Formats: sequence, C-alpha cells, structure tokens
Amino acid sequence: MPPGTLFIASDHAGVKMKAELVRFLENKGWKVEDLGAHSSDSVDYPEYAHRLCAEVLATGRKGILICGTGIGMCMAANRHKGIRAALCTHEFQAKSSRGHNDANVLCLAERITAPALACVMADIFLQGEFEGGRHQRRVERIEEA
Amino acid sequence: MPPGTLFIASDHAGVKMKAELVRFLENKGWKVEDLGAHSSDSVDYPEYAHRLCAEVLATGRKGILICGTGIGMCMAANRHKGIRAALCTHEFQAKSSRGHNDANVLCLAERITAPALACVMADIFLQGEFEGGRHQRRVERIEEA
Repeated sequence: MPPGTLFIASDHAGVKMKAELVRFLENKGWKVEDLGAHSSDSVDYPEYAHRLCAEVLATGRKGILICGTGIGMCMAANRHKGIRAALCTHEFQAKSSRGHNDANVLCLAERITAPALACVMADIFLQGEFEGGRHQRRVERIEEA
Repeated sequence: MPPGTLFIASDHAGVKMKAELVRFLENKGWKVEDLGAHSSDSVDYPEYAHRLCAEVLATGRKGILICGTGIGMCMAANRHKGIRAALCTHEFQAKSSRGHNDANVLCLAERITAPALACVMADIFLQGEFEGGRHQRRVERIEEA
C-alpha cells in the first residue's frame, strides 16, 4: 500500500515514542494526523483511544495508539465494533496482526519497546496485507461478542 | 489473594502452553476450569474467547486466554463490556495489567513466550492488586466507547 493518511495518538506515557514515529512515518511519505496528547501532563488513555477509533471508523484509515504498556489503549480501542487493535511488542506480532487478524489499529508500549523497534513494527503493520480465507471467518466471529 | 477457581481457554495454537499452565496453577492450589480447545485441530479463537468471557462475567473470577500471538484472543475478549483483557509478553506488563488496568483476563502468546515466563506472568497477574485512584477513573472511561 502506498503511503496515505493515518492517525496517531498517545497518553502522557507515549508522547516521546509518538514524536519519533511521526518523524519516521513522515519521512516515509505518510501524512500523519496527530490527535494528541501534546505534552507530558497526565491524561486518561481511554479519551485518546476513543478519539482515534472514531477517526479510523469514519475514514477506513489505520491508526497507532501508544501508552506505557500498550494495555490500556488496547482495551479501550477493542471496545469499538469494527476496530481490531493489536498490541505488539515483537515483529512477529506486527506481521501476524495484519495477515491473520486484519488489525486496523497498532498499539505500542513506550515503557517496553525501543523507538527503533516501534518504527520497524509500524512499517510492517502499515505494509502488511490480510490473508483472508479461514482468517476472514475468525475476524467476523470477533463481533459475536 | 488465596488460590480459588479460574478459567482458561486457548485455540489450537495454545494447547501446549495451556497444558503447562494448568499443571503449574494446580500445583499452586488453583482450581482451573479448562474450557478447551482440547486438541490441535484447527478452531476459531473467538469462540473460545467469548466462552471464557461469559464465565468470567458470570462469576467475577479471572481468566487466561492463549493463542499463537495473543492478538486475536485479546481483540475478541475486549469486545465484552466489563472484560479487561491484557496481552502480556513481559513481566512488567503483567504487573501493570493488575495495578493500573484492573485486568480480569490475561492473554498469552504461545508462539512468542516460553512456558516458564508464561507461568511467572500468570502468577503475577493472579496475585496482583488494583491500585485504584486515578486508574479507577481511567478504567471506567474504557466503557465510554
């Protein structure tokens, strides 16, 4: 997929990784819409997760969410029908999140993952293609909740 | 928290780790209700995630879900209001999942995490206490989706 527009957001514990990812992705040709947070003042991660998910659902574009462990963002994002948010700490997960789970939101952990690995995983996530087949049926069954 | 009853489930890609966790947890005194899968035949992860979440919501007990990357289980589990499912690959995440996110479901990745680390993280998850305070407000805001 050629670069287009994507959304990114974090809480206060993800602003440094967010800045590094924005720089990396813009250099790759992506237009990155940064939905905050914009400082290290303490904020509530669900507010940013819900804001980003609304944009992803409205546009069909992809999103990246960052907090300290990635866990809170992943919980809040996956509350939204149609959002498939993948918390990735390993490249293998980033690859599989697209191929098997058709993820449209990547969740990252600033307090665990080095910025360089985060950039590699963002690239894999943004380039990856969903494999369909048996994975399509499974993705549909996520919505049976 | 003294050992009590907990629920565990996996897809075909998590049955080996599940067996090791059941043995470990039973040795620790937990009563483990294994909701399947019970063979390596290919199954759909959302079926097992939804089954386990129904039990967790009905009883207030905790659950553990395993698939290859942990991602599919985490997506499906977090579709359920009241379920807070934490995909953990690092001990720090297991600790924080309880302290900050009040997680009631632990998601693990058989294709990434060694059984020994999975047991350590399960122990941390099951012993951990929620810190409340500002984290309580954030956990409540997850449900604003």
